Amino acid sequence: MTAQHPSDVQDVLKSRKDAFLIPEGIIYLDGNSLGVLPRHVPARLNEVVTQEWGASLITAWNTHGWIDLPARTGDRIGKLMGAPAGTCIACDSTSVNVFKVLSAALSLRPDRKVILSDTGNFPTDLYVASGLKDLLARRYELKVVAPEEVRAAITADVAVLMLTQVDYRTGRLHDMEDLTRTAHAAGALAIWDLAHSAGALPVDLAGAKADFAVGCGYKYLNGGPGAPAFLYVSPEHLDKVTSPLTGWMGHEAPFAFDLDYRPVSGIGRMTVGTPAVLSLSGLYAALDLFEDVDMADIRRKSISLSELFIAEVEARCPRLELASPRNPQTRGSQVSFRFKEGYAVMQALIARGVIGDFRAPDVMRFGFTPLYLSHQDIIDAVAILADILDTQSWDRPEFKTRAKVT
Amino acid sequence: MTAQHPSDVQDVLKSRKDAFLIPEGIIYLDGNSLGVLPRHVPARLNEVVTQEWGASLITAWNTHGWIDLPARTGDRIGKLMGAPAGTCIACDSTSVNVFKVLSAALSLRPDRKVILSDTGNFPTDLYVASGLKDLLARRYELKVVAPEEVRAAITADVAVLMLTQVDYRTGRLHDMEDLTRTAHAAGALAIWDLAHSAGALPVDLAGAKADFAVGCGYKYLNGGPGAPAFLYVSPEHLDKVTSPLTGWMGHEAPFAFDLDYRPVSGIGRMTVGTPAVLSLSGLYAALDLFEDVDMADIRRKSISLSELFIAEVEARCPRLELASPRNPQTRGSQVSFRFKEGYAVMQALIARGVIGDFRAPDVMRFGFTPLYLSHQDIIDAVAILADILDTQSWDRPEFKTRAKVT
Repeated sequence: MTAQHPSDVQDVLKSRKDAFLIPEGIIYLDGNSLGVLPRHVPARLNEVVTQEWGASLITAWNTHGWIDLPARTGDRIGKLMGAPAGTCIACDSTSVNVFKVLSAALSLRPDRKVILSDTGNFPTDLYVASGLKDLLARRYELKVVAPEEVRAAITADVAVLMLTQVDYRTGRLHDMEDLTRTAHAAGALAIWDLAHSAGALPVDLAGAKADFAVGCGYKYLNGGPGAPAFLYVSPEHLDKVTSPLTGWMGHEAPFAFDLDYRPVSGIGRMTVGTPAVLSLSGLYAALDLFEDVDMADIRRKSISLSELFIAEVEARCPRLELASPRNPQTRGSQVSFRFKEGYAVMQALIARGVIGDFRAPDVMRFGFTPLYLSHQDIIDAVAILADILDTQSWDRPEFKTRAKVT
Repeated sequence: MTAQHPSDVQDVLKSRKDAFLIPEGIIYLDGNSLGVLPRHVPARLNEVVTQEWGASLITAWNTHGWIDLPARTGDRIGKLMGAPAGTCIACDSTSVNVFKVLSAALSLRPDRKVILSDTGNFPTDLYVASGLKDLLARRYELKVVAPEEVRAAITADVAVLMLTQVDYRTGRLHDMEDLTRTAHAAGALAIWDLAHSAGALPVDLAGAKADFAVGCGYKYLNGGPGAPAFLYVSPEHLDKVTSPLTGWMGHEAPFAFDLDYRPVSGIGRMTVGTPAVLSLSGLYAALDLFEDVDMADIRRKSISLSELFIAEVEARCPRLELASPRNPQTRGSQVSFRFKEGYAVMQALIARGVIGDFRAPDVMRFGFTPLYLSHQDIIDAVAILADILDTQSWDRPEFKTRAKVT
């Protein structure tokens, strides 16, 4: 397509799109689920496989720095989130990391029994919290309230407030600084899941005085499918907590092969087993693309793209209902619309090259990655969406039947 | 080198060496630490990166079967170890998997308090057991005895016997069937760490009635650095236990995004977070090389190689002392020798292209991977070892000083 939207002309991130391998004919609005492949990553991964593993074999742990890869990758991610060097590490999955930081946080509040979260948290965080609660000696309560009730629920019995900053369905953005301050004022600690924040918007972990954070490497960080997750511990707590998963990589001297566990000083103690070098190398390489990017520019463009998307959809697809906050300051880098036949419309969209996703019962989700999307992409995507809505009948018999009942 | 050892002539696995990319001039005796790169894996991984991630993006979870990759990879590994389909899964690290199966096993023996292991277990297994013990409500005891005392220590208070089958230093092989039977007779359950067994020797998990097993993908299975580990649960226990790490991938319906955790039926409940697709794909592809191999042939050749190695070293390097069992039936696929200057000798060996490794204080370790080693490799490696020992003085002043003290 040769059209160009006026806002693309002055876009300071415009040239970044060339750094990604976007399939021909695809407008990809699902970077909040799985980021696009950066152009330089296949060659780099091939080098890791053939030169590092293939040619250096076991010696690569030192000669190619595999042993430090979790820390080096973590520092790169930490830089995007206001985490001082040595406080963020890349390892395991987000779910496993939630288990670690929640256990660590609870150990710092031995006299309190409530884990507070909300229904906007990603379910796996709640599952993990529930599993940990059942495992532990003391009888914890996992209290799950509506997102808008979180602030009022931060009472003096709360040990840990555990939230995902950006709601995976609606994009609703919690105020990390305010809620963390409220938690601290009540004597609680705050854990933030930044799965939909890292690389998507400016985060200031140190400034917000967050106690712990986790998040994943395969969404806006473009680390590849199932890329390792990250884990942050505030410097204030770093050597006061240990991981409940006391594996050898968290040991002070893993290659001394002592029979007793002694955690290493620093963030390394939150690692467990042998790092997944291939997956980690993909994530580390993908982070090259953030080296000289200003997160404020990313946020500016993210808002510009999502505001344009909302305006276009509301102008051209009046039957869709906005499910995301209208105020961009309280929204992450995604926009959702509700439509009763949303699942079928999303299938039709994907068939025509516009990839978003669907969350039951009726949410169509669209993610906006400023590094590889243009304003023209938004215009083109909504044109296809409007065409699908206009040219097909979405009042299916089964829907009519259901509608009569209500 | 053009020489060929007579035993190589009838070696039924001889042609397998060509399936691996062994660096020129290297004799690799460290496959028990990190397996060699299979020749077909770089192209396959490049395909996963460019075609699956790059071109199919989010749809690859279904179209390329990423979502089933842990189960499919686990079944391939399970086939090598007598595990029925659907009882073995590839996920996380060995350390994390030890945590899961130990927690699961303890839940099946609520009236018992002792976790029995031995000093020949790999340290991370002991670290994880110790961490789990500290976390749990009930006061467990982690009892660690010498390997030869394990059998007698299986008393009526033991909840779980947790052992690594092959000692990572000496190669000493526990009798899995006998010890499992002894554990069961005492009312205990048995967890086996097969890190140095899988792909190295025949294992019959079902036949031995093992309750749980774990192991790693990057040694004899050649899955690449930090490849995902595996986890086995006996069909008898499969739906009676849950993972303490209750992540969304273990949920009955992960994409229903319910707020409550309900474990899926079967081995999938032992998974946690999003699978590391790149690392898993490397492991899955590497397992191609085991598809038409008889583990009995592997064992036969492994014993032939290690017996030849011991005979050659003892004939040509009389100052080295065998640290492994002399009887090949009680030895895994590695041989260790003790030498006071073992560290320096290993460095010299590596500098001349013979790669083994060293474990403090004085153990030189040599692993034998039948798929890519020949008898001639053994002859050549020992010739270089003998040359290093013969042509350099290993009676360093500091050693003499230390020797005088004792």
